[in-house]
Amino acid sequence: MFKGVKVVMGSFKGHALPGTFFFIMGTWWAIKSILKYTCRKQKRTSYLVSKALFYRIELLEGITIICMAITGILGEQFIVGGPHLSLYNYKEGQWVQLLGWHHCTMYFFFGLMGVTNILCSTISSLPASLTKLMMSNALFVEAFVFYNHTHGREMLDVFVHQLLVLVILLTGFVAFLELFTRGNVTVELLRSSFILLQGNWFWQIGFVLYPPSGGPAWDAMDHDNIMFLTICFCWHYALTFVIIGMIYAFVTW
Amino acid sequence: MFKGVKVVMGSFKGHALPGTFFFIMGTWWAIKSILKYTCRKQKRTSYLVSKALFYRIELLEGITIICMAITGILGEQFIVGGPHLSLYNYKEGQWVQLLGWHHCTMYFFFGLMGVTNILCSTISSLPASLTKLMMSNALFVEAFVFYNHTHGREMLDVFVHQLLVLVILLTGFVAFLELFTRGNVTVELLRSSFILLQGNWFWQIGFVLYPPSGGPAWDAMDHDNIMFLTICFCWHYALTFVIIGMIYAFVTW
Amino acid sequence: MFKGVKVVMGSFKGHALPGTFFFIMGTWWAIKSILKYTCRKQKRTSYLVSKALFYRIELLEGITIICMAITGILGEQFIVGGPHLSLYNYKEGQWVQLLGWHHCTMYFFFGLMGVTNILCSTISSLPASLTKLMMSNALFVEAFVFYNHTHGREMLDVFVHQLLVLVILLTGFVAFLELFTRGNVTVELLRSSFILLQGNWFWQIGFVLYPPSGGPAWDAMDHDNIMFLTICFCWHYALTFVIIGMIYAFVTW
Amino acid sequence: MFKGVKVVMGSFKGHALPGTFFFIMGTWWAIKSILKYTCRKQKRTSYLVSKALFYRIELLEGITIICMAITGILGEQFIVGGPHLSLYNYKEGQWVQLLGWHHCTMYFFFGLMGVTNILCSTISSLPASLTKLMMSNALFVEAFVFYNHTHGREMLDVFVHQLLVLVILLTGFVAFLELFTRGNVTVELLRSSFILLQGNWFWQIGFVLYPPSGGPAWDAMDHDNIMFLTICFCWHYALTFVIIGMIYAFVTW
Repeated sequence: MFKGVKVVMGSFKGHALPGTFFFIMGTWWAIKSILKYTCRKQKRTSYLVSKALFYRIELLEGITIICMAITGILGEQFIVGGPHLSLYNYKEGQWVQLLGWHHCTMYFFFGLMGVTNILCSTISSLPASLTKLMMSNALFVEAFVFYNHTHGREMLDVFVHQLLVLVILLTGFVAFLELFTRGNVTVELLRSSFILLQGNWFWQIGFVLYPPSGGPAWDAMDHDNIMFLTICFCWHYALTFVIIGMIYAFVTW
Repeated sequence: MFKGVKVVMGSFKGHALPGTFFFIMGTWWAIKSILKYTCRKQKRTSYLVSKALFYRIELLEGITIICMAITGILGEQFIVGGPHLSLYNYKEGQWVQLLGWHHCTMYFFFGLMGVTNILCSTISSLPASLTKLMMSNALFVEAFVFYNHTHGREMLDVFVHQLLVLVILLTGFVAFLELFTRGNVTVELLRSSFILLQGNWFWQIGFVLYPPSGGPAWDAMDHDNIMFLTICFCWHYALTFVIIGMIYAFVTW
Repeated sequence: MFKGVKVVMGSFKGHALPGTFFFIMGTWWAIKSILKYTCRKQKRTSYLVSKALFYRIELLEGITIICMAITGILGEQFIVGGPHLSLYNYKEGQWVQLLGWHHCTMYFFFGLMGVTNILCSTISSLPASLTKLMMSNALFVEAFVFYNHTHGREMLDVFVHQLLVLVILLTGFVAFLELFTRGNVTVELLRSSFILLQGNWFWQIGFVLYPPSGGPAWDAMDHDNIMFLTICFCWHYALTFVIIGMIYAFVTW
Repeated sequence: MFKGVKVVMGSFKGHALPGTFFFIMGTWWAIKSILKYTCRKQKRTSYLVSKALFYRIELLEGITIICMAITGILGEQFIVGGPHLSLYNYKEGQWVQLLGWHHCTMYFFFGLMGVTNILCSTISSLPASLTKLMMSNALFVEAFVFYNHTHGREMLDVFVHQLLVLVILLTGFVAFLELFTRGNVTVELLRSSFILLQGNWFWQIGFVLYPPSGGPAWDAMDHDNIMFLTICFCWHYALTFVIIGMIYAFVTW
C-alpha cells in the first residue's frame, strides 16, 4: 500500500530471480538423482571415482547455493528503495520495508542450507542427513514466511501465494521424508519436480501480478482468473514431468 | 451461472462416466491385489508364468487407463456446448468453459499415469515405484482441482464435492504410502475400496444434483439433506467392503 | 430442535452406553497388550498354549464387540420416540430422526470390525492386519459422522463434540499406524489410553449436556465453561494413565 | 479482562520461568544427543561405563524435570492473587483463575513425563520408548491447552500464542516420530532445537506483551508488528542452530 512505484516495478525481477534459482537447482538435483541412480544400477568399477566426484559436486553445490542466497539478500537490501540494512525507523516510529526483510530471511535460511552442505561434506563426523534436515527447514521457514506475507492484499494475489505455500510445504514434507528413506530415487525425483514447479510458479506469479509487457495486471477480483490459475498450476506441474523425463532420457543416453 | 441448459442436462452423464471408470478400476485393482496375494501365499511353481502374466496385465492396464482418459477429455471438449479446445475468448475477453477444462486436466493426469504404467513395464531401468507416484500425483491433482471447483455454488453442491475431495485425498495419501510399503495387501485393498467409494460417490452426486428421473434436484438449503448424505457416504463405504469381500470369496474359490 | 422431551431425557443414557462400551474395550485392550508384552518378554515354554489362548480370546472379543454394536443399534432404533427403522417420512416429506441413524451407522461400523475380528481369527488365509484396518476405519467413520453431527447446535455442545472428534481421530490415526508397526507395546497402550479417554469423555458429555441430577445444563454461552472443559479433558487423559498404570501393576504382579 | 494488576505484572515472570526451563532442557538434550552420538561413533572400550553413566543421568534428568514442574505449579497456585488450589467459587458461581489452572495442567503433564523417566530407568521391564511417548504426550497436551487459551484476547496476543502452539505441535510430532526411529541423532537435534526455540519464544512473548522496562506493550492492532514477529520467530530459530552448533563444537572438542 505504501510501496513506491520503483519497488512495484522491480517486483517482476524480484519474482524472476528466485524463480530462476529454483529452476536451476531443481534441474540440477534431478540430474544428480538420476546420475546416482544409474551409477548404482550399473555398479561400475569406477565406484570410488564417482564417490570422490560426488563429494566435490556436493561442495560445489553448497558454494553455489550460498552465492545464490547472498545475491538474493544483497538484491533485496540494496535495491533502490530497499531497506539498506535498517530495520526500524525511530523517527517515524515504524518498521522499514518488512516485506524486503521477509525475503532476506528466506534467502538466509537457504544460505544456511548451503553452509551445512559444505560442512557435512568436509567434516566427516557430522551426520549426512543434516543436509536434508536443513533443506526441509529452509523450505518450511519459506512456507511459514509466505503464509504470513500477504496480509491485506487482494484475492488473486493471496491465491497465487497460497499455491506457492502449498507447493513449498509439500516440498518441505518430501525433503523431511528423505531423512528416513535414503537413496529412494522416486522420492528424490518428486522433490526435484516440486522444486521445478516452484521455480515455474514464481515466474507465473511475476507475469500475473506485474506483467513485464507493461500491460495492466490481471483482474484481482475475477473468480474466473482463480479458476484458470488452478489448472495453470497443474499444467506447470505436468510440464515438470516433461522436463524431468527429458533429463532422464538425456542422462541415460 | 452462465452454463446453458444443454450442459446442465449433460451433467448427470458427466458424473456417471468417471463414476463408472473409477468403479471398474477399483474392482480391477481389488482383483489384482487379491490374486497377487493368494499367488504369493501359495508359492506356486508357476511363479515365472504368473510374473510374465502380471507384466502383460500391467501393459493392458496402462492402455485401458489411457483410453479412459482420452474418452473423458474428448467427451468434455467436443460435447455440444463444450469448449472445443478454445481456452480464451478474445472477443468477449473471458475464459471459455473453465469447468470443462478443469475436468480435462484431471483426465489428463490420469492419462499420464497410464503412460507411466506402460513405460515402467516396458523399460526395466525405470524404478517400479514411479507408477505409484504418478497414481498418487493424479489423485492429489484431482483433489486440488475439485477443491477449487465449487466457488459460488450452493451449500449441498459444495458439501458433496467436499466429501469427494476427502475421499480422493485419502486415496492419494494411501497410494503415496504404498511407495514405501511394497506388497502390503491390506493397504492395497484399502486403496481399492477408496477408489470404489469414489466411483459410487460420483454416481450419488449425479443423482443428487441432476436427478435423471427429471424430477427436481434436492433442496440445496436443507440441513437434513446434508445430515443424510453424511451417513449415505458411510453406507457407500460399507458397500465397498461387501463388494471387496465378494471379490475375495470369488477369487479364492 | 424438533426433538421431543423423551429423547432429550434419554440422551444421558445415550452417552453413558457408548461411554461404558469404550471404557470396557479400552480396559480390555490394555490388559491384552500388557499380557502379550510380558509373555513375549519372559519367553515362556508354554508359548503355544498362550497362542491358542489368544486365538480364542480374539474370537470372544469379536463376539463381544458385535453384541455391543447390536445393543447400540437396537437401543437407538427401538427407543420410545426412535425411528423404528423408517428413514424417510413420505407424508411429511422429511427425514426421520437422522441423529439416531447417525448413531446406528457408527455402531454398525464397529459391528463390522467385530465381524472382521472373527473372520480373521477363523480363516487363516486372511491377512491379520485386516482387523487393525477395520478398527481404524470404524474410528475414522465415527469421527467423520460426529464432525457432521452438530450443525446448528450451541457453542458448548459443539465444543465437547469437537474434543470427541479430536480424540477419535487420534485413536484412528494410531490404529492405522499399528498396521505398519506390529507388536509395539507403547503404541498399543497409547491406543488403549485414547479409547479409555473417549469412554470417559462420553460420560463427561452426558453430565455436561444432560445432568442426570435433574439440574439445569451448563451455561452453553459461558466461555469459562469451555476453558474449564479444556483442562477437564486433559485431566481425564491423565486419569487414563493412572488406570493403565494400575492395570500394568496388577498384570505383572 | 478481570485479571488484577498484580497478576498482569507477574506475567513477565510467568513467561520467563517456563522459557528458562525449556532453554535449560533444550541445551541439556542437545548435549546428551551429541555425547551419545560421538560415543557411538568412537566405539570406546569404556562403553559399559558410559552406559551406567547414562542411566544415572536419566534418573537425574527425571528428578530435575519433576522439580521444575513442581516449582511451576506452586508458583502458579500460590502467587499473590493466584487460585490457591480452589477451582470453583460457589459464592459468586464462577470458576477461579482458570488461566492459572491451565498453566498448572501443563506443568503437571511435564511432571508426569519426569515420573515416567524415573520409572523407565529403574524398572527394566518397562519399555524404554514410554519416556518418548510421555514427552510427546506432554507436548501435545501443552499445545492443546495453549490453543484453547486465548479466547477473546487481542490480535497480537493471539498471534504470538499461535506461533507457540505451532512450535509445540512440531516438537510433539518430532518426539512422537522418535518412538519409531531410535538413535537418529538428526531427529534428536531437531527436537532439541525446537525446545530451545520454544524457550526463546516464551521470553520473546514476555517482552512483547509485558515489557519489563515498564514501557507500553506493543500496539496489538498493528499488522506490521505481526509481520515483524513472523521473521523474528525465524531468527530465533536460526539462533537455536547457532547454539546447537556451538554445543557440538564444544562437546567434540
